[in-house]
Amino acid sequence: MKIEERISCIKPVRKDLYSAAQRRLDNLTKPPGSLGRLEEFARRLVAIYETEMPEMPKKVVFTFAGDHGVAEEGVSAYPPEVTRQMVFNFLRGGAGINVLARHAGAEVVVVDIGVDFDFQDCEGLVRRKVVHGTRNMTKGPAMTRDEALQCVEVGVELAGEYADKGFRLFATGEMGIANTTPSSAITAVLTGRPVEEVTGRGTGIGDEAFRRKVEVIEKAVSLNTPDPGDPVDVLAKVGGSEIGGITGLCIGAAERGIPVVVDGFISTAGALIAWALNPAVADYIFAAHNSQEIGHKVMLAHMGLRPILDLDLRLGEGTGAALAMTLLDAGLKIYREMATFQEAGVTGEKTD
Amino acid sequence: MKIEERISCIKPVRKDLYSAAQRRLDNLTKPPGSLGRLEEFARRLVAIYETEMPEMPKKVVFTFAGDHGVAEEGVSAYPPEVTRQMVFNFLRGGAGINVLARHAGAEVVVVDIGVDFDFQDCEGLVRRKVVHGTRNMTKGPAMTRDEALQCVEVGVELAGEYADKGFRLFATGEMGIANTTPSSAITAVLTGRPVEEVTGRGTGIGDEAFRRKVEVIEKAVSLNTPDPGDPVDVLAKVGGSEIGGITGLCIGAAERGIPVVVDGFISTAGALIAWALNPAVADYIFAAHNSQEIGHKVMLAHMGLRPILDLDLRLGEGTGAALAMTLLDAGLKIYREMATFQEAGVTGEKTD
Repeated sequence: MKIEERISCIKPVRKDLYSAAQRRLDNLTKPPGSLGRLEEFARRLVAIYETEMPEMPKKVVFTFAGDHGVAEEGVSAYPPEVTRQMVFNFLRGGAGINVLARHAGAEVVVVDIGVDFDFQDCEGLVRRKVVHGTRNMTKGPAMTRDEALQCVEVGVELAGEYADKGFRLFATGEMGIANTTPSSAITAVLTGRPVEEVTGRGTGIGDEAFRRKVEVIEKAVSLNTPDPGDPVDVLAKVGGSEIGGITGLCIGAAERGIPVVVDGFISTAGALIAWALNPAVADYIFAAHNSQEIGHKVMLAHMGLRPILDLDLRLGEGTGAALAMTLLDAGLKIYREMATFQEAGVTGEKTD
Repeated sequence: MKIEERISCIKPVRKDLYSAAQRRLDNLTKPPGSLGRLEEFARRLVAIYETEMPEMPKKVVFTFAGDHGVAEEGVSAYPPEVTRQMVFNFLRGGAGINVLARHAGAEVVVVDIGVDFDFQDCEGLVRRKVVHGTRNMTKGPAMTRDEALQCVEVGVELAGEYADKGFRLFATGEMGIANTTPSSAITAVLTGRPVEEVTGRGTGIGDEAFRRKVEVIEKAVSLNTPDPGDPVDVLAKVGGSEIGGITGLCIGAAERGIPVVVDGFISTAGALIAWALNPAVADYIFAAHNSQEIGHKVMLAHMGLRPILDLDLRLGEGTGAALAMTLLDAGLKIYREMATFQEAGVTGEKTD
């Protein structure tokens, strides 16, 4: 199926199911609404799953890895070889995402979608390389349109494969030295805000490198003139392979009726492209947390999403999304396990 | 030991241990500081436990239950018998705190410290009744000074007993119809803010009951003239038994070097009394979440505490604290389980 057809298949979530879920929540032994966003999570999950009493979902975090030609412009605090080194760290279980996914009871799937290194077959690594790193976007488009579409397709396919394996809650994550740079570019183009208002310090660059980063993004945008009305054009010209994978995962999740927890700044850039293709995708997205990267808030506001956590995270990999999954679980457990007023013999009538 | 002696025994946490912990955190495979507050939690736990590599702690939530004479003034949306009914719900495992404590891997200890009902011996119920409900504070002090001190003593003793049983992470919770009313009174007296700025809608009262609630609190404060320089006097005159139990638990935790996660508005009123007795208590406290009750922010700012979660919760029982415990666990797991740059063969030198 072509990507345009998939996108047009995505249905908004049935809002009538929110009220059905809220009726049960209001019957549980607590003042109505007093569990705040946990109730929101339960309502939304019931509506997405289209079942009155959802099972606890099997969970998986997809960590897409890709390199960026723009790294040679000195926009990151770390050298490009860290991308592949971190992939090995993910595969050995020693990275932040491994620890937090174990904490959340989620599997980690590491996807080589665009690392500039030839990995051997290796347990836990999904090899779907589209590019050996993107090209330097200050000198031309980061990817061709066809490469960008292939990246999206990888994400869509993985969503389908893991849905077929019985996973019912997805999270996005990424690894790619320099990838806050394309993410800021995407944010600027798709929200119309100036580059400097949506650009942060990534892994921790100093003042001079920060000024250079803003200039690099401005140059890439003015050189390539990505079309804000054509999200795939934006992804190709100033995006990245892992960002495209995340776009595809969001589309595939929405198509299959599976909720997807979107991590921080870079993941949200991928989700924003999916949203720009079809805003109904937002019905299936949970925004994991409020990243320290300033452009993140801009994207979340643009899509009308409210983050679950605010813990000053800026690591990526899917770490915030793994933590947020535990809170979705908590919301669903409340819904499934709490006693009703009748079951507990508690007076539910308010006297006020 | 008298309470004054215990209070003077509390030592501030050794700040040099924060830097020792941060050195390890900066050596893990992530940009320095990029796990934000998870790193803060790890640092603080290392310093509180005074060990370089803390074990994962056994966890317990103490839910103190007490009734309030002031309920007869119509300040709550629910009738007073709901306190005892909810105690039975806790004991059967059907309440919000049961679900979320199971989620967090924590035990729930339900403490009858002041319910106006005679419970029989019952598994899971700790019977330490000090009062059969407090007296109506619009007609005189809620408790005598001696009763208030006994409530604090119950909390201190429980902290010691559960420390001896091997528990190393405590959380506070409470149940008591009308108990946002004494909590607002305590907030107003100890922070010096006007009653209406620290009073909210509790379980969900309407406009008329809200105006009455503000009047009731103002009347109780002006009639009893609690001394802001004497926190036990404040607890006795306009407080509650469960609030005193929480004060004692915070004191006992700090004395034993055990971190304590303080739930929402009512729990924080108990913590505020402990803090007013000795501000070093704050070194051991984690503020679980940002409650919907407006007076909560005022207390947290007063003690310099930043809440972990912001999920629009206003249920109490310890529900927010149980959720926050899972994030402290996550912080400690990061610290314990992540690979260092050297172990993972990742380039840790920044190029910037």
